[in-house]
Amino acid sequence: MTQHGPLGVAVIGTGKMGADHVRRINEVVSGARVTAVVDVDAERVKAVADGIEGCTAYTDPAAAMAAADVDAVLIASPGPAHEAALLTAFEHDLPVLCEKPLTPDAASALRVMEAEQRLGHRRVQVGFMRRYDAEYTKLKTLLDSGELGRTLMLHNRHRNASIPSGFTNANLVNDSLVHEMDVTRWLLGQEITSVTVLRPRPSSHAPEGLDDPQFVVFETDGGAVVDVEVFLNCGFGYQVQAEAVCERGSARIGDAHDLLVNTAGRWGGTIAQDFVERFADAYDREVQAWVDATRRGEVTGPSVWDGYAAAAVCEAGVRSQSEGGRVEVELVDRPAFYR
Amino acid sequence: MTQHGPLGVAVIGTGKMGADHVRRINEVVSGARVTAVVDVDAERVKAVADGIEGCTAYTDPAAAMAAADVDAVLIASPGPAHEAALLTAFEHDLPVLCEKPLTPDAASALRVMEAEQRLGHRRVQVGFMRRYDAEYTKLKTLLDSGELGRTLMLHNRHRNASIPSGFTNANLVNDSLVHEMDVTRWLLGQEITSVTVLRPRPSSHAPEGLDDPQFVVFETDGGAVVDVEVFLNCGFGYQVQAEAVCERGSARIGDAHDLLVNTAGRWGGTIAQDFVERFADAYDREVQAWVDATRRGEVTGPSVWDGYAAAAVCEAGVRSQSEGGRVEVELVDRPAFYR
Amino acid sequence: MTQHGPLGVAVIGTGKMGADHVRRINEVVSGARVTAVVDVDAERVKAVADGIEGCTAYTDPAAAMAAADVDAVLIASPGPAHEAALLTAFEHDLPVLCEKPLTPDAASALRVMEAEQRLGHRRVQVGFMRRYDAEYTKLKTLLDSGELGRTLMLHNRHRNASIPSGFTNANLVNDSLVHEMDVTRWLLGQEITSVTVLRPRPSSHAPEGLDDPQFVVFETDGGAVVDVEVFLNCGFGYQVQAEAVCERGSARIGDAHDLLVNTAGRWGGTIAQDFVERFADAYDREVQAWVDATRRGEVTGPSVWDGYAAAAVCEAGVRSQSEGGRVEVELVDRPAFYR
Amino acid sequence: MTQHGPLGVAVIGTGKMGADHVRRINEVVSGARVTAVVDVDAERVKAVADGIEGCTAYTDPAAAMAAADVDAVLIASPGPAHEAALLTAFEHDLPVLCEKPLTPDAASALRVMEAEQRLGHRRVQVGFMRRYDAEYTKLKTLLDSGELGRTLMLHNRHRNASIPSGFTNANLVNDSLVHEMDVTRWLLGQEITSVTVLRPRPSSHAPEGLDDPQFVVFETDGGAVVDVEVFLNCGFGYQVQAEAVCERGSARIGDAHDLLVNTAGRWGGTIAQDFVERFADAYDREVQAWVDATRRGEVTGPSVWDGYAAAAVCEAGVRSQSEGGRVEVELVDRPAFYR
Repeated sequence: MTQHGPLGVAVIGTGKMGADHVRRINEVVSGARVTAVVDVDAERVKAVADGIEGCTAYTDPAAAMAAADVDAVLIASPGPAHEAALLTAFEHDLPVLCEKPLTPDAASALRVMEAEQRLGHRRVQVGFMRRYDAEYTKLKTLLDSGELGRTLMLHNRHRNASIPSGFTNANLVNDSLVHEMDVTRWLLGQEITSVTVLRPRPSSHAPEGLDDPQFVVFETDGGAVVDVEVFLNCGFGYQVQAEAVCERGSARIGDAHDLLVNTAGRWGGTIAQDFVERFADAYDREVQAWVDATRRGEVTGPSVWDGYAAAAVCEAGVRSQSEGGRVEVELVDRPAFYR
Repeated sequence: MTQHGPLGVAVIGTGKMGADHVRRINEVVSGARVTAVVDVDAERVKAVADGIEGCTAYTDPAAAMAAADVDAVLIASPGPAHEAALLTAFEHDLPVLCEKPLTPDAASALRVMEAEQRLGHRRVQVGFMRRYDAEYTKLKTLLDSGELGRTLMLHNRHRNASIPSGFTNANLVNDSLVHEMDVTRWLLGQEITSVTVLRPRPSSHAPEGLDDPQFVVFETDGGAVVDVEVFLNCGFGYQVQAEAVCERGSARIGDAHDLLVNTAGRWGGTIAQDFVERFADAYDREVQAWVDATRRGEVTGPSVWDGYAAAAVCEAGVRSQSEGGRVEVELVDRPAFYR
Repeated sequence: MTQHGPLGVAVIGTGKMGADHVRRINEVVSGARVTAVVDVDAERVKAVADGIEGCTAYTDPAAAMAAADVDAVLIASPGPAHEAALLTAFEHDLPVLCEKPLTPDAASALRVMEAEQRLGHRRVQVGFMRRYDAEYTKLKTLLDSGELGRTLMLHNRHRNASIPSGFTNANLVNDSLVHEMDVTRWLLGQEITSVTVLRPRPSSHAPEGLDDPQFVVFETDGGAVVDVEVFLNCGFGYQVQAEAVCERGSARIGDAHDLLVNTAGRWGGTIAQDFVERFADAYDREVQAWVDATRRGEVTGPSVWDGYAAAAVCEAGVRSQSEGGRVEVELVDRPAFYR
Repeated sequence: MTQHGPLGVAVIGTGKMGADHVRRINEVVSGARVTAVVDVDAERVKAVADGIEGCTAYTDPAAAMAAADVDAVLIASPGPAHEAALLTAFEHDLPVLCEKPLTPDAASALRVMEAEQRLGHRRVQVGFMRRYDAEYTKLKTLLDSGELGRTLMLHNRHRNASIPSGFTNANLVNDSLVHEMDVTRWLLGQEITSVTVLRPRPSSHAPEGLDDPQFVVFETDGGAVVDVEVFLNCGFGYQVQAEAVCERGSARIGDAHDLLVNTAGRWGGTIAQDFVERFADAYDREVQAWVDATRRGEVTGPSVWDGYAAAAVCEAGVRSQSEGGRVEVELVDRPAFYR
């Protein structure tokens, strides 16, 4: 059933990501408005709500989801709070856009997956927003067209200018590499079967406790080999690249440029300094797609299965970091529900 | 005064451009909805209105502008109808986004300019949408920063894959070259003082009645020399490029790419096939900017003066085509109102 | 008749260019050696000869050309000395590679042309070395293939990082722009019929007495329109670009790069700082081609007609600079000898 | 001691590679000529010698090396014949340019290394010609400058349009991958300590008996991680790329272009179709550098140690292919002689 008026959205979590989604829904996206904001920090959430006409502040997600003017939920709270919020949303049968990670580990993701199946229909879109990036989308379209034949290898680079201190090897897998895990699964339409993490001698700019950069190899159930450079203190900028090598050609994204400048012996352009700059449009498109689908009464985009599979691959990645060598990924059979 | 609810927009003209703006306002832009559509074709306008909740069809622009749910007007009717629609909007003191050309000639543009001045405040944004293109915006920002020094020359290319038959030399100036006229004035912040149109021996693909390509030189009151290649049947795609050559460097846009493909002995990418593909985002941003400014009670973007100046330069261009050689541009003094 | 041993070359003029050719012949090119060097500066020429086994120093070109071990002549002396050296070479019927300009003006070039015709066979290759540059050669090959159809326009950029003081507007035409004159004639296979020089308000880095940059338009007898930006103090490097716009496509050279570097927020590469760096290979190939052809008993490459035509176009260019506006080029009819 | 006349070179082996070197020495390189050609095929070698003034045909390398007009030896015979030819050259104390591989395995390479050490001075330059490629040279210069800090990772692509049938997995390592082995050692100045070969599900264009493509990971004694895609039937062209990822930036080669063409909806350029086209200049520069050094009485370039190390890494690579997993490289200690 199609919704005619604007979609009333409850945004759970008003930290950096949540606040940005509030702004996006109210000022960028067509057909939605924020009617509820939720945060354990009562003061912060009140301040946010006060700035928006017709928006109520809550500290309890369940209360917000029970409100009459809430048609859908965007979860942007910390990962450990996701499972409870998702289960509550299921009780109200509300459509959800859940920021990644779906949940912090494979076991909890599996529980969410089972709960959604009990509900009998898909309700959750997981926030793997690279699937909405214009460059990735073009690459996906080209690969799916079959023009280049089967994809044999995928080379990826994931570079941040710098990373806040406190970021650990596990964060590198769970928060950074997780994007390439999803991109690999999505672009190839295959599951990752093993992960091998190699650690070069770290850069002298690597902070205490983080081996930076790392080089990761995935193998897939379709026989593809995928490599990922993750370099979180590369110094020069935020750079995400992917090259698919296929039977009849190769295709590369991540070198996009617009303005070329000649100055003082050098030609070239600038490099984006963070993911906000690089992926701003992808976030806008992701939320717009979710709003549009929800208003049409549909659920599209990355599913709970995708969130679960990413969690399982992450667990293998963290084990490869600590134990060394190649680690096989353990996945339950994919339910027909998610095919 | 700030408007809280969505802006009610009357769209005048429901041809290709108008229909696209209707879709844009309802499905892409945040904070506005189409409450009225106007067209002399009663059947067509009714069909458009029927598909939109809360939208009324009109055949008379004045009736639409008098409606209570109309807060602003977007004029997308043919050029000769613009003057009357603008004057009516002024009577209702409504904010207007007027598609280019402002009016078909400098004399009528001058009348509109005078009417707006009598109103006492700016009401019109003219639809020179290249000012909202991400690449042009970056170029403008760089030039304005002063980093490269004064701009000495500007090289432009304006290429269409092909053009419908019936397009004349005058169309080439008034409908195609007009964009580079505005871009020149905007990027440099200078007025164009002369136009010289050169016509190479036409391509064998040029249709009857059109000398294609043409090569145009502008001189400005700041001493810059600007050249424009206009090639409307280039065959390979829609390509808009600009290079500013400055005292300490040069900067070029229009070679942007995202996906690089290797196939069968060739590397490279695709070329956009029309302006819709190339400038889709610019149109979205233009209308969003107009909606946002209007809701804040402001008028921004290209002014009636810009529409008038473009019309005056076009007249000189058409004269250079027919008489040959360099033709000086005649402009009235710029009113303080438009500084 | 083919020459088996290495070609003995007399190099006339041992200034910067001459000395570089001496090095080139002895250390880079296959099949030739310098057997004579000539310069009015007796001390300098002796120093050069002393460093080379089997090489004699002369102050008189005629004496060098009469020597038994001299098979061919490379003229790299100042332009005003070229006519006499060429006529002497004709007396000895020696093959000549003559650095550009052939002679300083059209009248003297015409005299050389007549003298060579009296000789009855071509003896002179003029040093327009861009015809030997790999990029220009590829562009020429593509245009000649007919794949893109007839060439309609040619856009050129000729930028130097900076120019020594004392360089005049006439130098800009005779020493810089002359390359694009030859490139235009060679790429298109057409004669230039008019020259128009436009002078933007000069860069603040332009030295006293030089209007820098300048923007030049050529028209050709095949109906093509050619534009050239000449910017001799652009600050950022030596950059030579050309784009041919044809009926079925366009092709551009001069953006070649090899090493791409990411550093501190910027991606890109370096720009060559002078013509020696940019065109080193072209000079090597030019001289090797001359040596190879000479050893085979042939004369190839740019002819005296090309040298004459360049001189005539330069005269028109200088007149356009001083008088303003469009100046027609005056050429004698092309002798059958040079077809 | 410096040699004044041209260097007399004996070329051993007149197959495709040898014949090309004969042409190069006689027609491209300055300061050398072929005075002897050697081949077991008496007819072929006589035909080659007959076309060159002052060149004698031999079927026995030792006889050629004993000739008075032979100053230096270029070995381009099949790999198994290299050891004997090298030892004979050592007997005559002749400088040698030996095409890769030095010898077919590490044991024989070790014997050559010991023989050269007994001779007491370096005599051999091994034909790893990528070290003479302009792009690799620039990359090496940049890395050695320290500007980007220590190199942490090196990503390589090695693609051939297609490969003759009969090429085996061992050939892929010994004839293709061997270049990246040398490039890795040379660019980083480190030894390779382990090799891991991964084999994606082969392309449907892979010939019987060859797993194509393969993905290889090297680890080095400096802690760098190096990956190489080897794809010998990629279909689109010959493409060699390398990206060094360093502590303060990254640098990439192998995307060089010169001519950019717009045609029919596509922009881009051509891809070289084989190594002859891609590396022609590198071969020229390699042989010129060898001739120049030899005439100065010096030995430069890749040494016998480099040939030995490549052989040892190749053996590990072939083992990883057949046994799977990571294989450690076994190297003798590097003799002081080769430091």
